[in-house]
Amino acid sequence: MNQTLPDPDFDSRIRTSFARQGLMRTIGARLTRAAPGEVHIEVPFSESLTQQHGFMHAGIVTTIIDNACGYAANSLMPPDSEVLTVEYKVNFLSPAKGERFVAIGKAVKSGNTLTVCRGEVWAFDDGGRKLVAVMQATMMAMKG
Amino acid sequence: MNQTLPDPDFDSRIRTSFARQGLMRTIGARLTRAAPGEVHIEVPFSESLTQQHGFMHAGIVTTIIDNACGYAANSLMPPDSEVLTVEYKVNFLSPAKGERFVAIGKAVKSGNTLTVCRGEVWAFDDGGRKLVAVMQATMMAMKG
Amino acid sequence: MNQTLPDPDFDSRIRTSFARQGLMRTIGARLTRAAPGEVHIEVPFSESLTQQHGFMHAGIVTTIIDNACGYAANSLMPPDSEVLTVEYKVNFLSPAKGERFVAIGKAVKSGNTLTVCRGEVWAFDDGGRKLVAVMQATMMAMKG
Amino acid sequence: MNQTLPDPDFDSRIRTSFARQGLMRTIGARLTRAAPGEVHIEVPFSESLTQQHGFMHAGIVTTIIDNACGYAANSLMPPDSEVLTVEYKVNFLSPAKGERFVAIGKAVKSGNTLTVCRGEVWAFDDGGRKLVAVMQATMMAMKG
Repeated sequence: MNQTLPDPDFDSRIRTSFARQGLMRTIGARLTRAAPGEVHIEVPFSESLTQQHGFMHAGIVTTIIDNACGYAANSLMPPDSEVLTVEYKVNFLSPAKGERFVAIGKAVKSGNTLTVCRGEVWAFDDGGRKLVAVMQATMMAMKG
Repeated sequence: MNQTLPDPDFDSRIRTSFARQGLMRTIGARLTRAAPGEVHIEVPFSESLTQQHGFMHAGIVTTIIDNACGYAANSLMPPDSEVLTVEYKVNFLSPAKGERFVAIGKAVKSGNTLTVCRGEVWAFDDGGRKLVAVMQATMMAMKG
Repeated sequence: MNQTLPDPDFDSRIRTSFARQGLMRTIGARLTRAAPGEVHIEVPFSESLTQQHGFMHAGIVTTIIDNACGYAANSLMPPDSEVLTVEYKVNFLSPAKGERFVAIGKAVKSGNTLTVCRGEVWAFDDGGRKLVAVMQATMMAMKG
Repeated sequence: MNQTLPDPDFDSRIRTSFARQGLMRTIGARLTRAAPGEVHIEVPFSESLTQQHGFMHAGIVTTIIDNACGYAANSLMPPDSEVLTVEYKVNFLSPAKGERFVAIGKAVKSGNTLTVCRGEVWAFDDGGRKLVAVMQATMMAMKG
């Protein structure tokens, strides 16, 4: 990524949007890093978010990478832009077993209309961290 | 799909697994249909599950198609089988705006190890229904 | 699909574009059906297009569904539009073993900028036909 | 990737398999690097492989990343293993315009049955190189 930044105030724009998401409150997610083209989102383990084996549900793992990728794309867009998820693809590499989960979303190619992102989710516990999922996604800029 | 059904009791097996998912309770989802190779899951709109524009979050839309596809695959597996999501890809066609959302998951090709599924999510309100998302997914059988 | 057709002459537009693809000549592909939102492309088996077991290469299977989906999207676009493949995802269901292969691409949702398509490839031989691959894709309209 | 290598002779195994692919000869592709978990494949531009604007067809771009990812997965498998492509997803970032194209496939997570890979394709000409496409793929080990 080697581009000028069309909105130096992207950080507050992204955080305002994040704060409006009811689902982020419900799952206890926090936006822990917002750099140009890279956003991190963290969520603690909760029994209210599990699949049938007691691990975090793939849908929640997907939710946080989707947001990390979407805001990574949004960080490179002009001041008045919102971001829509066009599509994504996720591979699940290991059971989402851990105390907390960190999604890292990065813009790979940022265009006027579409931005392609890659993301990953890491599970953390006492023993260290493990790669849980990888995403490849297409995001779309929406003006106004 | 034209195959013998290796577990005539798939229905109770699937419903038991569904009932163990903490996330399904949290989002108020119900398994409304379980046929061989086809499962439906429904979730009502809730402000606790929204994205920044007040519509259902893409992650929740994904969650219910993932489950519908996963259990559609699981319905065709032997008695002692569980199902794991290997990967999925979702396209979002319209904002997830509605009173309730119905995910339909169908097995396209069921193998010994892997099952390929396709799914869709429809948004319902007074005015009718609208196609919100389509999924293509790979599920894996886990013995024991 | 229930939409007005913005270009009644889509058929000649699509066939002209298809004829300009060097790769279609190289692999011997023919566009066998072009209806609004649905295009079929057929390719005969050739030893020059094989993978290591002597079956048709996944890349050629993908090539014909990509084109079938792309032109299915293009058929619904205005007169002066070309189509670009934004992304696709393909699942391979069976070895591509047969005498000829038919790709069927269909538009699922056609928008001003993006069109979502689904496609499939069938292998044909004396014994009948078999589903070889399924695609889910995003296409983009390019004006001029 | 931090794993023991189950087949120290993976290089000749992969190159033998590559040499059996009729399509690789047809398109003039060469396997230019085979390391554990990483394989590079290069193809020169040819008018016989173009789409309607005279650039390399997305299907050929996909073909070389598919092979690079597949053999990257295969390099980490036991001596008697072959590799099957389960599925892949490709995003196209720029027109495939260049004199030659290099696909780089890497294994992200290698399991007993499934290996998840990521790949990319770069276009090269006098002016340097440009990222053309990125892939996320699932490969499967086949014994014997």
